[in-house]
Amino acid sequence: MKQWMELQGEEFALRLQGMLEKKQYRELRGAFSLFEAPDIAQLFGQFEEKEMLLLFRILPKDTAAEVFVEMEADQKESLINSFSDAYLQEVLSELYIDDTVELIEEMPAGVVKRILRNADEESREAINRILRYPKDSAGSMMTTEYVRLYKDMTVAEAFERIRRDAYDKETVYTCYVTERNRLLIGVVTVRDLLMAEEDAVIGDIMTENVIFAETMDDRESVANAMSKYDFLALPVVDKGKRLVGIVTYDDASDVLQEEITEDIEKMAAIVPTDKPYLRTGTWETWKSRIPWLMLLLLSATFTGAILSSYESALSKVAILTVFIPMLMGTAGNAGSQASVAVIRALSLGEVQMRDVFAVLWKELRVALLCGIALGAVGFGKAILLDGASVMVALVVSLTLALTVLMAKLAGCLLPLGAKRVGLDPAVMASPFITTIVDTLSLLVYFAVATALIPELG
Amino acid sequence: MKQWMELQGEEFALRLQGMLEKKQYRELRGAFSLFEAPDIAQLFGQFEEKEMLLLFRILPKDTAAEVFVEMEADQKESLINSFSDAYLQEVLSELYIDDTVELIEEMPAGVVKRILRNADEESREAINRILRYPKDSAGSMMTTEYVRLYKDMTVAEAFERIRRDAYDKETVYTCYVTERNRLLIGVVTVRDLLMAEEDAVIGDIMTENVIFAETMDDRESVANAMSKYDFLALPVVDKGKRLVGIVTYDDASDVLQEEITEDIEKMAAIVPTDKPYLRTGTWETWKSRIPWLMLLLLSATFTGAILSSYESALSKVAILTVFIPMLMGTAGNAGSQASVAVIRALSLGEVQMRDVFAVLWKELRVALLCGIALGAVGFGKAILLDGASVMVALVVSLTLALTVLMAKLAGCLLPLGAKRVGLDPAVMASPFITTIVDTLSLLVYFAVATALIPELG
Repeated sequence: MKQWMELQGEEFALRLQGMLEKKQYRELRGAFSLFEAPDIAQLFGQFEEKEMLLLFRILPKDTAAEVFVEMEADQKESLINSFSDAYLQEVLSELYIDDTVELIEEMPAGVVKRILRNADEESREAINRILRYPKDSAGSMMTTEYVRLYKDMTVAEAFERIRRDAYDKETVYTCYVTERNRLLIGVVTVRDLLMAEEDAVIGDIMTENVIFAETMDDRESVANAMSKYDFLALPVVDKGKRLVGIVTYDDASDVLQEEITEDIEKMAAIVPTDKPYLRTGTWETWKSRIPWLMLLLLSATFTGAILSSYESALSKVAILTVFIPMLMGTAGNAGSQASVAVIRALSLGEVQMRDVFAVLWKELRVALLCGIALGAVGFGKAILLDGASVMVALVVSLTLALTVLMAKLAGCLLPLGAKRVGLDPAVMASPFITTIVDTLSLLVYFAVATALIPELG
Repeated sequence: MKQWMELQGEEFALRLQGMLEKKQYRELRGAFSLFEAPDIAQLFGQFEEKEMLLLFRILPKDTAAEVFVEMEADQKESLINSFSDAYLQEVLSELYIDDTVELIEEMPAGVVKRILRNADEESREAINRILRYPKDSAGSMMTTEYVRLYKDMTVAEAFERIRRDAYDKETVYTCYVTERNRLLIGVVTVRDLLMAEEDAVIGDIMTENVIFAETMDDRESVANAMSKYDFLALPVVDKGKRLVGIVTYDDASDVLQEEITEDIEKMAAIVPTDKPYLRTGTWETWKSRIPWLMLLLLSATFTGAILSSYESALSKVAILTVFIPMLMGTAGNAGSQASVAVIRALSLGEVQMRDVFAVLWKELRVALLCGIALGAVGFGKAILLDGASVMVALVVSLTLALTVLMAKLAGCLLPLGAKRVGLDPAVMASPFITTIVDTLSLLVYFAVATALIPELG
């Protein structure tokens, strides 16, 4: 018995290394039997490729398949290349269909051919059917291994079927009831079955009100729906409402994590990649970061142009320069607060497109409060800390209040606008907002300064 | 049968409103029976309080309890205040213990007293036990309703027990095997039971290698572990390894979502709140946003001071001002890319503290590539678009390269440092990094300018 917290740490990897060097294969097998597949995969990640291949061979066949699924794409590729066709067939026969599909999506063409050649006839057909769906669809994330019942079966017969099927179905706890032509007509859980009499008929105890997804539905919405309803599995039907597969909660939760990582990366001006941080190469990381940096660098031409057109004003009242970073920074922060709050609320379903006026009204009031507070403190700071005149302090404080207002409104409207035209709201996060708000705040600053300071009039 | 995508939209709320006005209660009850609890709760959110209370009374008792759990805290409070003691008792008796605990944590003291007074003896004890654990611990998120088996039971006896308990246990699919004194010794799933012979003994088919959490473990780590292992439930034990409760996957997934929202809010300089966006009042939103805005505004004193100390340099070579927003913006973006990438990798467990040198080495190489690319483009842009002299363009381009390097290193080291000293890495995201990097980039800019431009020497 053990606690999951004790499983990490490289000390353990060192001990395994020792056993491996002493060729204590039996002991290694014993040690591995104490761990769950994700932990073994993580341990393997700390070994050289050659050692990793050796260690993998030590695992019992069913554990080997589970560990294989948890490895990173490049490790999977090395492993497959080291497998004989016979061994590859064995591993593939242990994999669930959805895991095989994911594997195929990650592998280069040559490896994919070898995988398909070594999969059995039935799996190959199921795989090819799933591969036909677009990458972001419910169809592409489903598995075809589920328990299907008929409405005229008794509970005892249903249990018979479940027992027979249990070995190679990903979940047995939710069973789907269909007509002979696969038309989905109901759902029944093992819990329902356990609570029913042995001779009760499935048609009488099933829930007819099935919530389902269609193959072409967006996979993020499907994952969100499953998390909202706390479903263990969701059936996927074709256009004729015929059951073609199910999505299980573990895959749904992986999709949610991936989508959140993508959103966060977009918020930080990173072009999303699929790979874990340390397994992404230098060039690949560079390629995911340089586009936004370049774009934002070039867009700074606007701020540059504004500053050079006010060069004479800045040389007349030099202290104006001192406040530029503060004004731009504060406006940028205020704008990104609003945009990130709205982006997250949209993705959690807390805000819908119809709420646009409620959002605007809320941000307007918050912006006024923030603007007043920041304007007041900015005024005091300018006089006391930066030694500005009252008139300059007034310009700074008015600009602060105005730009915070504009920043918050831009921050809430741009993500909603992006969603309206079918773009991902997350691209309207901090980097983009900041660039717009930088330009706006300089324009406001110089307009207010020109209006209030006589020397610039 | 219906598809979850069709469930949203205010048209439906309008139709319900019509039925309510015509007092068509039977029809309303029929309409609700087509929906799942989270959808009904969402629909209720679109009604006035009075109508909502009316609609709630129309629901069948068990649905009412499920819907109640899904409502927002303020709605729950109005509902409870409108309930008679007898009706409150009925609703409470339908709730799972963990949902009641969550309810109590959200309610003001007066309402809590009334809830505890109306809960039955057994629940009250369980609730009080759970409430004693700190808010971020595994103990506080567990439920005490699970199926417990003994190792000398047969499979048939186990099914008997499950059938007897099924009604009021949150999950029946994972059962825990303990000694009579509750010492946890194994776990067995309904799937295992279904695949075993009726007269097999639990002790022979159970998995002894149980992964468990202790009551005081951090709830985010517990939720992460459950998502990693794809567990439906995880047992929670006290210091004597006695089973005290279980954490179910739906609560774990809620915790993950909450923690991610918190991280994202921290990244956007927002003090996290628990409430959904549109249900947070203006003052509350203001209070969650103004602290960071003030702090960042005041920290701009550094950039202001640097600019005023170089006032004479800026007036001598006025074009230097033009590049300030671009330099600060680019460095800020480069830094937040690195910090967000590291923060996310830390929270996904892709990066551990021991990887600090691997992270540093990776960011160093990426920073060099980004620095060279940005420096080169910046040089061209300064000459072609901004009309700078070669020497000024050189200063700009060198500063770009140097500050990008510094920004990336600060961006990756600060979150790791925060984690090292026990802080949340997410506070070291964009706003904080940007402030540091703003100051650094101005210092570098003027140092390089003073060194290279003879008029400033």
